[in-house]
This record gives sequence, structure tokens and C-alpha cells, in this order.
Amino acid sequence: MKVPPPLGKFVEIFSALPGIGPRQAVRLAFFFIQQGVAFNDEVAKTILSLKGIKICRQCFYIHQNESGICDICSDKNRNQKLIAIVEKETDLMSIENIGQFNGRYLILGDLRRTGILEAGQKLRLNSLEDWIGKELGGKVEEIIVALNPSPQGELMTNLITEEFKGLTGKISRLGRGIPSGGEIEFADEETLGSALKRRE
Amino acid sequence: MKVPPPLGKFVEIFSALPGIGPRQAVRLAFFFIQQGVAFNDEVAKTILSLKGIKICRQCFYIHQNESGICDICSDKNRNQKLIAIVEKETDLMSIENIGQFNGRYLILGDLRRTGILEAGQKLRLNSLEDWIGKELGGKVEEIIVALNPSPQGELMTNLITEEFKGLTGKISRLGRGIPSGGEIEFADEETLGSALKRRE
Repeated sequence: MKVPPPLGKFVEIFSALPGIGPRQAVRLAFFFIQQGVAFNDEVAKTILSLKGIKICRQCFYIHQNESGICDICSDKNRNQKLIAIVEKETDLMSIENIGQFNGRYLILGDLRRTGILEAGQKLRLNSLEDWIGKELGGKVEEIIVALNPSPQGELMTNLITEEFKGLTGKISRLGRGIPSGGEIEFADEETLGSALKRRE
Repeated sequence: MKVPPPLGKFVEIFSALPGIGPRQAVRLAFFFIQQGVAFNDEVAKTILSLKGIKICRQCFYIHQNESGICDICSDKNRNQKLIAIVEKETDLMSIENIGQFNGRYLILGDLRRTGILEAGQKLRLNSLEDWIGKELGGKVEEIIVALNPSPQGELMTNLITEEFKGLTGKISRLGRGIPSGGEIEFADEETLGSALKRRE
């Protein structure tokens, strides 16, 4: 069935967004149409206002500073020689929220299912190597490779460990075990094995 | 953890959209930030262009006509005395796509879980009653109450049937049965009972 071109365009753009399929894009389109002009203006303005947000050239997290460096990277009270490599901005936010990490980060960007690093991800890792070489005398105290314990995450963790082991005193990953509220019955073998080995 | 205000606002607005929760709103925000200004401009423009789409004052589907009436309602080749009452625009689109219905529609709008008609939905039903009374001599040939066979849909179908039975020669609902590709084993009792009763 033919639809008005602005609706077709909306569905085309929104169904290409992460986590939104064609059906939900159509649903959203009708929702926007029903909400009317004032609501749509506000949403459009909100999207446009994102242009005030920049990406840190050191860790690739977001910021609004003139310096080009985010609040975390420019915080002199944080340990510059303790570095967590994470996949996503939201992983950084989760770690920040527990308030127990006082180092800096490197955001790698979404890992592909293929297990291959994208060009942009390689550049980010290279920039960290450069930074360790030029600013930190060639060696840091510890790098935590904080990637999800998925097959791709594991593969990438091994790759990064191999690449950085000469540039850091210690290289670690997050501990595996039964999550709080989780059930032993439903834990897979590897998780349960790790939990047993790291019993405290 | 503190986030830049434009990001906070984005998450607030997008997590209130149907089918998008706070986690996906955050994910979308970072996606938009990474895509950059040109992409965000295009999305904003697409949302703003929806204002060219109007809602038909007869059936409440969308259109871009000067007349205030959609293409379906203004099509003289369609039977004005055959009316399908549907919940959503997408239901209308699904029925149009099979190309076997030559009547007009009334879109009721999303049914609430409470099983109670909203004020706006009552107005839409009243406008149909008025229209049958004033334009069609008080009686149509058939009304198909094409609502989902859910408990709310059933309740609403009964309500509407009661209200319209004096205004139509026939009042029907969609046939129940095993869907194509469905499995008898997984059909619920009511569906299987209907399929047996309506065997062909």
C-alpha cells in the first residue's frame, strides 16, 4: 500500500537505527503523527542539540569541554597508569557508577560478531599505545580488559592482551562468577568453574 | 554518573516513546552522537517533515489531501456501506495489502488493557454513527469489527456489536482458525474449536 513520502522516509531512517525494526519504525511514525507538531519540534530540537557533545580524543567517551578531553581523562586525581579497555560508553558508565575505579578508560566501540577488529578500533588501540609510549614512559601499571565474557569478547581480550602485555606491569580481565541474585542451577559450566576457583 | 544535559534530555524523550526503554534510549543517543551532525540533521528534518501528514476526519487514517479526507474515504469506487472497524493504522494497512476489501474503515486507536473505551475512541465511534445517520440513510450493509482476538479485543467487539447492530444489515468479525504455517499442536482450545466449527 502506498504511504505518504515523509512517512516512507521516516520508516526508512528509523528502521536502520540499532534495535529498531521496520514494524517498530512504522509504529513510531504513527505515534509521532498523532502527537502533532509541537512534540515533533521538541524531538527534532533534542536531536539537533546533541551536536554540542564531542568525543574525547583520548578515551573516546563524550564531553562538552573546549579542551577536546573528557572530564575523566582531564581529572588529575585519577591514576593515569591504570587503564580499563571497554567496548561501549554504557560499560564505562556502569563502571563509573560503582565508584570503585580510579583510572582512565579506552572505549573500543561495538565489537563485530566476526571477531575482527575494525579499522577504527585498531586506530583507538594504536592511540593508546602511542599515549603509553609518549606520555607515560612506555609502561603503565595495569590494563584491565573489561570486555563482555562472550566468545567475541574473549577473542578480543586475548588479542589485546597479546598486543599490550609488553606495555603494562599487569594485564587483567574482570572476574567471572555467579552474579548477585543469580542461581547456581542456571550457571553455565565455565561460570561455575570460575566461581569455584575464585571462591573467597 | 553525570551526563551532558542534551544527552539527558534525549534519553528522557526517547525512553518515553512506545517500545523504547531507558537502555535503548541511551544506546540510541550514543549512536546519534557517533553518527555526527549531518545524520542528526537528516533525522530531525525527517521528523519535522511529518507535519505535512494529516489525519482523515472520517476514518482517522493519514493523508496529504487538501480535502481533509484520505484517499480511501474519497475513493468513489469503494463501497461506502461496508465498514471495517480496526484498532491501528497498521491493521488498516495489512487489510489493504491483501487487496480483498473494497469498503472503508474506522480506526479506533490503541485499545487500553482496562477494556474501557477512551473519550477519543467514543468520539470516533459517535462520528461513525452520525455519518451512517446523515450520509447513508441510517443503515449500512455490513460492519466488520476487525479487532485482535485478545481479551480486550473481544470485549470491545461485543461492545461495538451491541452499539451498532441497529445501524447495519450485518455485523461480523474476522474468522478464527489455525493461521497458515501454524501448528495444530500449539493452537489454544478456542482457536482449534473455531477452526473445527468453520472447517471448509
